[in-house]
Amino acid sequence: MRQFVNRRETVVTEAIDGTLRAAGDRLARLDGYPHVKVVVRRDWSVAKDGADRVALVCGGGSGHEPAQAGFVGRGLLTAAICGDVFASPSVDAVLAGILAVTGEAGCLLIIKNYTGDRLNFGLAAERARAFGKRVNLVIVDDDIALPDLPQARGVAGTLFVHKVAGARAEAGDDLDAVTAAAERVIAGVRTIGMSLDTCTVPGSPKESRIENGHAELGLGIHGEPGVEQVAYANADQAMGLVVEKLAHGMADGPHAVLLNNLGGTTPLEMAILADALARSAIAERLQWMIGPAPLMTSLDMQGFSVSLLPVTDADVDALQVAVASDAWPGAHRLGEPELRPLPDGLRPVRPRASAHPAHRAFLERCCEIFIDAEMDLNALDAKSGDGDTGSTLAGAARAFVEALDRLPLADETQLLRAIGGELAQTMGGSSGVLLAIYFAAAGDAADSGKTRIDALRAGLDRVREVGGAGPGDRTMIDALLPALDALEGGLEGAAIAARRGADATATITKAGAGRATYVGADKLSGHNDPGAEAVARLFEQLSA
Amino acid sequence: MRQFVNRRETVVTEAIDGTLRAAGDRLARLDGYPHVKVVVRRDWSVAKDGADRVALVCGGGSGHEPAQAGFVGRGLLTAAICGDVFASPSVDAVLAGILAVTGEAGCLLIIKNYTGDRLNFGLAAERARAFGKRVNLVIVDDDIALPDLPQARGVAGTLFVHKVAGARAEAGDDLDAVTAAAERVIAGVRTIGMSLDTCTVPGSPKESRIENGHAELGLGIHGEPGVEQVAYANADQAMGLVVEKLAHGMADGPHAVLLNNLGGTTPLEMAILADALARSAIAERLQWMIGPAPLMTSLDMQGFSVSLLPVTDADVDALQVAVASDAWPGAHRLGEPELRPLPDGLRPVRPRASAHPAHRAFLERCCEIFIDAEMDLNALDAKSGDGDTGSTLAGAARAFVEALDRLPLADETQLLRAIGGELAQTMGGSSGVLLAIYFAAAGDAADSGKTRIDALRAGLDRVREVGGAGPGDRTMIDALLPALDALEGGLEGAAIAARRGADATATITKAGAGRATYVGADKLSGHNDPGAEAVARLFEQLSA
Repeated sequence: MRQFVNRRETVVTEAIDGTLRAAGDRLARLDGYPHVKVVVRRDWSVAKDGADRVALVCGGGSGHEPAQAGFVGRGLLTAAICGDVFASPSVDAVLAGILAVTGEAGCLLIIKNYTGDRLNFGLAAERARAFGKRVNLVIVDDDIALPDLPQARGVAGTLFVHKVAGARAEAGDDLDAVTAAAERVIAGVRTIGMSLDTCTVPGSPKESRIENGHAELGLGIHGEPGVEQVAYANADQAMGLVVEKLAHGMADGPHAVLLNNLGGTTPLEMAILADALARSAIAERLQWMIGPAPLMTSLDMQGFSVSLLPVTDADVDALQVAVASDAWPGAHRLGEPELRPLPDGLRPVRPRASAHPAHRAFLERCCEIFIDAEMDLNALDAKSGDGDTGSTLAGAARAFVEALDRLPLADETQLLRAIGGELAQTMGGSSGVLLAIYFAAAGDAADSGKTRIDALRAGLDRVREVGGAGPGDRTMIDALLPALDALEGGLEGAAIAARRGADATATITKAGAGRATYVGADKLSGHNDPGAEAVARLFEQLSA
Repeated sequence: MRQFVNRRETVVTEAIDGTLRAAGDRLARLDGYPHVKVVVRRDWSVAKDGADRVALVCGGGSGHEPAQAGFVGRGLLTAAICGDVFASPSVDAVLAGILAVTGEAGCLLIIKNYTGDRLNFGLAAERARAFGKRVNLVIVDDDIALPDLPQARGVAGTLFVHKVAGARAEAGDDLDAVTAAAERVIAGVRTIGMSLDTCTVPGSPKESRIENGHAELGLGIHGEPGVEQVAYANADQAMGLVVEKLAHGMADGPHAVLLNNLGGTTPLEMAILADALARSAIAERLQWMIGPAPLMTSLDMQGFSVSLLPVTDADVDALQVAVASDAWPGAHRLGEPELRPLPDGLRPVRPRASAHPAHRAFLERCCEIFIDAEMDLNALDAKSGDGDTGSTLAGAARAFVEALDRLPLADETQLLRAIGGELAQTMGGSSGVLLAIYFAAAGDAADSGKTRIDALRAGLDRVREVGGAGPGDRTMIDALLPALDALEGGLEGAAIAARRGADATATITKAGAGRATYVGADKLSGHNDPGAEAVARLFEQLSA
């Protein structure tokens, strides 16, 4: 079993209870497990609410979650009658649901057009009428996959019925008005689906009917084969086929569109399909959008359906009224992506170059030190890594020497920032970014009036924050931090501190950050961390 | 390719545009495709909103939808920086996002703990600071899968940070207060995930690492292997393993829990997992629930994660504040399913038996007619169906004769209803339900004062509504409707009309309802519909 279920017999009862538990104080169920699986609004009283407002009841087989239980709530359904997976609920279950929520104002039964549902809901309606309940029923047949079939299936377009009739019922319309609203939606709504794979019924093996490179067009929501298998190329082509079917016989004027995830399509794919739909041949007539979202699923089917409803202004109002259901994604105006200009100054202004012989000589000396250390540092890195630390530093140093003439050497604050900018561009990998952060932060600190040493310390703080490494993690910080701490006393003391720190890394056999975290202790023991060694050599040779 | 995508290179840009199009007037993006993929609140002005309120910016690789773009909106993120699938966005993209939304009040960068994100967001923060922007950053490391790894990953717990910090920012807290709130959440939040399958990166083949019957525990959101493979039994056992990891080191006191769909788990399974979680060993400490919902997915991974946050009253308030995002499912109090008693009278009261020799004789005669017709009707049905129409009717007739003593024979209204009740119980299949509906509706009509014939017509109307068949659809209606229309003139005329109608069904080669819709014209042509034939025989023999 490759599904998160327990026993086949309790799939639906557990799912309903999970839905109820997670829904806060909004839902309740009738105490009739296992046969009566009816979810009702917890805030609904038959005597009080049912006197003023028409109850809306829908149901059918399970496996279409969030439909129907997820749409129970103010402004949508009053009760949902849940059958087992893909199986109609019993007459008794439907009757229980009707009786549980229907007051003086009556009840509208919304039935998806399947024989079992029609019969069981139909008989339950008769029984409820014998109890004196006013019950109307409407039958949703929105599927256009089989134009010649006299009995079209009820699929995701049912959600439009819930929403429009739900808004009318919540507003206090009487049973005939609510029924008329539902019937008008049913007359207008049309749906077609497409899928790349079949669905998996819990406890049953999966039938793999659809070959790779193919899709089924015009499928139902119970794993039944689609009307045709078509070659599948990509999302645009798939949406094009669906839109072609919908365009045939589509009314003029504004439409609302519902983009339904059949269960196994990722949000990423659904967003791409939404984009394709909004760029399609019928896009101009699509003014309002519900989804993309899983609304009427077919278990884990990797597919989607598109439902169209020609809308009046009143429909649009009804679609937008807030409801008490997390499963209803809202109806939004469909439009072009709104673009904002890129902010100014993404490319930092290059500071004006200036001369400062002492600064220049110091930086050249630093670069020389790294260039000289190339082979030694590579050899050290090879003991535990890929042996390129020396070349990375030396390469950056060589490029930096070339750049010296472009730098604002006379302005120490700008110079620190500019060093960061150069290193970000010329030195690859994590170290380049971290050194860029180091010098940029040091420049900021200098700009805010800190001393040179404090500015360098501020840079290190930021590197620690971003890089996540601290002392003892076997990084260059183990040499740099003690060196900076000692720097007030002069370069010699800093060099001694850096060397002590670098040598101590040879005893750290568990790296705390960076690539060496993935390296075993035996490979780390006895060798200095190459980054710390580089720092030690820098300070030692500067102080020599 | 078995995914709804177009080109690998445009997966993310198209998905963002689809998200924007479907989001109404809430979102915009920077005009920097393909490199700068930044989604911003459309209602946010840097000069005005950014002056009073801290901007919240998050981002990272795509493939985790609805994170992050789906959480851009009032009360959550101000901007989302989207990388390619599972790839960190560039420094320039992050910088563009920061600059686009950050005003005087500053910006909090929320970074999931991955090296690439830390470095690119970190350097972008430095650059933004060089522009005079106040930028703080926090790093989310909620994954507890690898307790020994110094750098825990950032996963679905990030949503708690968005929500709590988002509420503080929306309320006007300053940058330090918003940062402190985020850091407090990060210190408390812990997440672990489990999956039955790996994910499929668009354009790449799927690696099937997990054997059937196994699950991975402690996995990340980029398809990287979990900490351990475990034997998988069922949803309860899976949730038990996850809860065991979370229980270790879990604080006392109330917690909020976030149940995240990793992308490929069905809503049905997620509801079962919610139920399992709410019944688990830690259930008593779980007081608030977010989800189940896809929040931080890993493409199509069939798995889930559970995130725990110990909450204060202020946190609970923050979690419940309304936000402008369809992707946020709300936080609800986690509780026991609320049960409502079954409504009274699910079993209809059996009417009191009464005697009426004429009614009794009439009904016995009807039953005889059906019993006599058994073989003929079976033979007729065998031409186009499974040959059991005669036996179904005869069986019901035999059972009905046995029941006559229990019926309220003297009360015609009650009698009609009671006939319906008997047939519903003894006659299987669709026909039984339809006849039950017929007699129940006729009884209702008689009860409301209609004549006998009008009552029988009302029954037929209901059967047509529920069954969906009309005249010409090759059903018993083709005989019954003309018979009832002629009945005012007496039984003989009705019999002639019924016979004419039944014989006409032999020329109907395209059935409009029922099982015969699936039967070819060659099999239907030349034979009467067996249901219509039964009606014709009934009227003929009653009038004889």
